[in-house]
Amino acid sequence: MADTAAMADASGQTSPDPLNLPEGDPFGPHNLPYGVFSPNPDGERRVGVRLGDHVLDAGAAAAALGSPYTSLLARPTLNTLMAAGRTTWSDVRRALTAWVTVPAHRDAVRPFLHPLSSVTLDLPFEVADYVDFYASENHATNLGRLFRPNEEPLKPNWKHLPVGYHGRSGTVVVSGTDVVRPSGQRKGPNDPAPVFGPSVRLDIETEVGYVVGAPSSQGTSVPLSSYRDHVFGLCLLNDWSARDIQAWETVPLGPHLGKSFATSVSAWITPLDALDAARVPAPERTVPLLPYLDDSAEATDATAATESCGYDLRITVALNGHVISEPPYSGMYWTGAQMLAHMTVNGASLRTGDLYGSGTISGTEDNQRGSLIEITWNGRDPLELPDGKRAFLEDGDEVTMTAWAPGPEGTRVGLGEVRGRIVPAR
Amino acid sequence: MADTAAMADASGQTSPDPLNLPEGDPFGPHNLPYGVFSPNPDGERRVGVRLGDHVLDAGAAAAALGSPYTSLLARPTLNTLMAAGRTTWSDVRRALTAWVTVPAHRDAVRPFLHPLSSVTLDLPFEVADYVDFYASENHATNLGRLFRPNEEPLKPNWKHLPVGYHGRSGTVVVSGTDVVRPSGQRKGPNDPAPVFGPSVRLDIETEVGYVVGAPSSQGTSVPLSSYRDHVFGLCLLNDWSARDIQAWETVPLGPHLGKSFATSVSAWITPLDALDAARVPAPERTVPLLPYLDDSAEATDATAATESCGYDLRITVALNGHVISEPPYSGMYWTGAQMLAHMTVNGASLRTGDLYGSGTISGTEDNQRGSLIEITWNGRDPLELPDGKRAFLEDGDEVTMTAWAPGPEGTRVGLGEVRGRIVPAR
Repeated sequence: MADTAAMADASGQTSPDPLNLPEGDPFGPHNLPYGVFSPNPDGERRVGVRLGDHVLDAGAAAAALGSPYTSLLARPTLNTLMAAGRTTWSDVRRALTAWVTVPAHRDAVRPFLHPLSSVTLDLPFEVADYVDFYASENHATNLGRLFRPNEEPLKPNWKHLPVGYHGRSGTVVVSGTDVVRPSGQRKGPNDPAPVFGPSVRLDIETEVGYVVGAPSSQGTSVPLSSYRDHVFGLCLLNDWSARDIQAWETVPLGPHLGKSFATSVSAWITPLDALDAARVPAPERTVPLLPYLDDSAEATDATAATESCGYDLRITVALNGHVISEPPYSGMYWTGAQMLAHMTVNGASLRTGDLYGSGTISGTEDNQRGSLIEITWNGRDPLELPDGKRAFLEDGDEVTMTAWAPGPEGTRVGLGEVRGRIVPAR
Repeated sequence: MADTAAMADASGQTSPDPLNLPEGDPFGPHNLPYGVFSPNPDGERRVGVRLGDHVLDAGAAAAALGSPYTSLLARPTLNTLMAAGRTTWSDVRRALTAWVTVPAHRDAVRPFLHPLSSVTLDLPFEVADYVDFYASENHATNLGRLFRPNEEPLKPNWKHLPVGYHGRSGTVVVSGTDVVRPSGQRKGPNDPAPVFGPSVRLDIETEVGYVVGAPSSQGTSVPLSSYRDHVFGLCLLNDWSARDIQAWETVPLGPHLGKSFATSVSAWITPLDALDAARVPAPERTVPLLPYLDDSAEATDATAATESCGYDLRITVALNGHVISEPPYSGMYWTGAQMLAHMTVNGASLRTGDLYGSGTISGTEDNQRGSLIEITWNGRDPLELPDGKRAFLEDGDEVTMTAWAPGPEGTRVGLGEVRGRIVPAR
């Protein structure tokens, strides 16, 4: 097959060559996020790489090219590739880049491109443990002001360690999966006893998820400087939250059923190597950090300051197609490297497929808040949408989070969207 | 081979027939707990069934007998059998009982018995999600008194729902695994800033673990009456806890690194069918429960009262061989069925291998407390042991939890021990 901009399909009509992307496509060869797809509804799952509006069947392409990476890519999940480690991740990415950019390779892989509209996207990896952090100072401050108006909004530990807790990995679902409105106990301050029923304060949390590839051993910790040896890539994450259920259950052991019904992740995992141009320094720390978290220029570990970074991700949150917030990820107080170092400093091991979330991302501005409880200030200021007022989510509401980051040479790197629709309680 | 009480080994010496157990052996044919073992250190893992001081290679025995259960039992973990569901669990248990009691079968399976002393016991199942509850009223009251002396010891939600939170499933280890003392941040009330170092308040939590076999679908809940359709069996569990790390990190999202370094479970899972004689009614409720948790005689679901039960487990906790506590499980406020119903009432799905812990088991008496923080009243009253005083665990300390329950016809059903030794921080 010729490397041309247009191909003839079976009917003789020509269609644009999927390998010749429009200029500025955020899913060009500089991006190449990984996912898992099924070519037909009951089909075998395959590792795919997104290119524009197509997905490359990476295992089939590797096999056709006789690539040594076939055994990593011809798999039903990303876990095998993720477990292979940083050197292999870079090598595979270099190979994929060549396959979609070098003319001879392009001809060989073109038959393995499927239009996104023709495939089902699956959960891209088997989730091992899921930890959710609370790394946005603006978000933590907003919630402190809402719930403890007469106290300091941040708890004393907040600037000393990235606060986090374990969530339910078995209910992590891929973008596009409907979310059943959860039922549970709630109790208002004036109710004599709790009542049971569908949540009436169902919310979103706009987050970035970090996907762990290479494991570590129990009893050892992962320093800041080893962040990129373990983290395979990033995704977008919506930590659906039933605020009424959460408020009643949460003392003294933290959130449980208010969160565990569903967590949505994007179908695409963006490799860290695709985000090099989006790296930004962590914000200035207002209290000194213990050495294992210190990523300042004065840190004992000289590489910590370069390895521990933020990312300039520009996120858009839409409710039924209307933009309701644009939280910037660049201002997060805690970095992915710090969350990882903290999570393992007690010797907790990492497994391939561990997922950790940033916690709700909120910026300094009113239009940069990552949850409805902040946007509507706990329902006091409902959103006015063309389809009605919203304090919290109603049945049928669909929430979509999208994001992009600066790429090399003025390009944009698109992150996969995370989308979910609320269906009525059963 | 004859079904006799003694067998000749290769050297011609006779040894007792492992199938003829001493009267009253708590691991007799009325028990038959499941585990996973390796016949040699680098050997293949196999599903085993304990009989006295031996383990039956269940897959090999099934194959030799041409059993239809071979495909469930000839596996490296219990997960396949666990996923098969309650009817199959009962059928397999009946078959195993016949193999070790009917003379012709005994002769066939005898070659597949290995002395426990000759094998390595492995983690018996792949842990999916791990949730830890807080179901002992005495324990919750003790901790409330210790930490909030001027308040009601129980929080307002405690008698309305079983409080629980997710723990780290990737650090669940089998009995016998050494536990590295965790390091982390701690901050005393008078310290100006947190300090970093090995925990100086390392504790145990004596618990019972519930092991989920049959999965459920996301968006649906599991009623009290379906408890035995999903729970495969029980184990003992030690939820190691670094009290100093936990105290500093825990607000507002609950325990994290104070717990996530290690959780030990017994190598043997006791099937619920082996514990029928140990079932006891749940204690009287002092506040009315919402219908999905109501296991009283007046419950809407008439079978809930019989399915939701406590267990008369008599637990002994030893530190370096000295008994330090004997917590009774029979007095727990929340039952395993209630914890399961609550955990899924928001639509959270169950997966094969989900594990949930009861939380620390403490009785009403001083010698029935399940954690050192209660036994020593937060260090005020150290234990006086032959090898010295103990407020919390020292390096080299070994903790062993054992338990038995009443079995049929005056027998005892032994639970597998959970044992762990503290090794110094790295």
